[in-house]
Amino acid sequence: MKEITSIHNSTIKALVKLQEKSRERKKTGSFLIEGIKEIKLAIAANYQFDTILFYEDLISEKNVVSLFKTDVTCIKISKEVYEKLAYRDTTEGIIAVAKAKDFSLENIKFSTKTPLILVAESLEKPGNIGALLRTADAANIDAVFIANPKSDLYNSNIIRASLGCVFTNQIATGTTEEIINFLVEKKVQIFATTLQNSNAYFKENYQKASAIVVGTEATGLSTIFREAATQNINIPMQGQIDSMNVSVAAAIVLFEAKRQRNFKQ
Amino acid sequence: MKEITSIHNSTIKALVKLQEKSRERKKTGSFLIEGIKEIKLAIAANYQFDTILFYEDLISEKNVVSLFKTDVTCIKISKEVYEKLAYRDTTEGIIAVAKAKDFSLENIKFSTKTPLILVAESLEKPGNIGALLRTADAANIDAVFIANPKSDLYNSNIIRASLGCVFTNQIATGTTEEIINFLVEKKVQIFATTLQNSNAYFKENYQKASAIVVGTEATGLSTIFREAATQNINIPMQGQIDSMNVSVAAAIVLFEAKRQRNFKQ
Repeated sequence: MKEITSIHNSTIKALVKLQEKSRERKKTGSFLIEGIKEIKLAIAANYQFDTILFYEDLISEKNVVSLFKTDVTCIKISKEVYEKLAYRDTTEGIIAVAKAKDFSLENIKFSTKTPLILVAESLEKPGNIGALLRTADAANIDAVFIANPKSDLYNSNIIRASLGCVFTNQIATGTTEEIINFLVEKKVQIFATTLQNSNAYFKENYQKASAIVVGTEATGLSTIFREAATQNINIPMQGQIDSMNVSVAAAIVLFEAKRQRNFKQ
Repeated sequence: MKEITSIHNSTIKALVKLQEKSRERKKTGSFLIEGIKEIKLAIAANYQFDTILFYEDLISEKNVVSLFKTDVTCIKISKEVYEKLAYRDTTEGIIAVAKAKDFSLENIKFSTKTPLILVAESLEKPGNIGALLRTADAANIDAVFIANPKSDLYNSNIIRASLGCVFTNQIATGTTEEIINFLVEKKVQIFATTLQNSNAYFKENYQKASAIVVGTEATGLSTIFREAATQNINIPMQGQIDSMNVSVAAAIVLFEAKRQRNFKQ
């Protein structure tokens, strides 16, 4: 088995770049996954793997190999190399190099005629995107669309904040126009969360095919999304500050939709 | 007007301690507030102020004084001192030294016979506490109780994460036992969020006086809270990971309660 002990090794240097730079991930179509839970979720979602790096003092080769359904190429790494690559304060000793999935809208498949979809437009903070993906997983909705994405979803901060839910959700990315066209074509009702010309969210019916659209806390949704909406909706703000965290707002509306659907899977 | 230009000044050293150490805040009964929005919310909530420090290049004395309803003692500070005290990347130039309120349960007053209360037990992360306080403000609930608090609420991270909602909510802290006794005595229904022996949250009726109790993501609620509950409730987890951010979970249940109450103020 190959073994790498130097952080100056060219493979390691390339992996550090992969972890740090979105551009590198796009160029190579690969990204890093850290953490056993996250790697397991990616395996369950049929991700393909290039290489698995492990630090033997923390995890044995046997345990590494047993995680995967198919043969994988393993590389033993030194403590120094592991610490160079490890992004988190975990001590699980394993880093997987995985192949990115194609997040095209055309790959989206629904197993129901009445899908429930979350659309997030122009979100930037990995913490918010991660929280949305966790909520989407918990509600087991049919897809998450990221309109006008500000960072690629294989950013280690997003993988971490989502607790691996970047792998468990059916995701597509696209421009705002592409996503609106997709929703209109599929006859999905568009509920845009915005204060302007909007109804209270709990007065609407989400039992038909529905997309809940949320934007950034700072700038809100784009005009084209608000104009494309079947109905604009708001969450009544009854306190002294007029703002709500975007992942909290999305959860409130998504779970109202789930309630109306009797939480049917 | 007094002016302080050195970070070695004893007043400034004391204020740095006040910002950094919970112990100092407890000892002196004072704490720092940064940011005009946050200071305005504290003023609206009738907080009292010891001193206002301002850096004249960013905010004029006139603008500082005009914020307050009553006379305040102002101290002009240098750029160096401001940067030493300023906790955030803001450029608002003002830091207020405020008097802490007494968060005793006995100070809690309800203007309704059917209060809606959020109880958070043993939460540690300022980001989560801040998010809960924002949600509580948006829903305009009657009180937030922090059981077994892990940090004082005047921690600058909490003030910031709450966007000042630490001032807009009616808050009490206490031991888990004290809070349970208070709720039982006031005949408030206790809904404890937990997976064990629990009903789906949307099947319960929150129109009577109700407290929604949430715990940490890691350890959940204490046994005594679960046993004191009128009813344990859960949010169905239908995805692949079995966890939800605590502030998201609290928001889902609180807004279901608000929906059942027709969002009446």
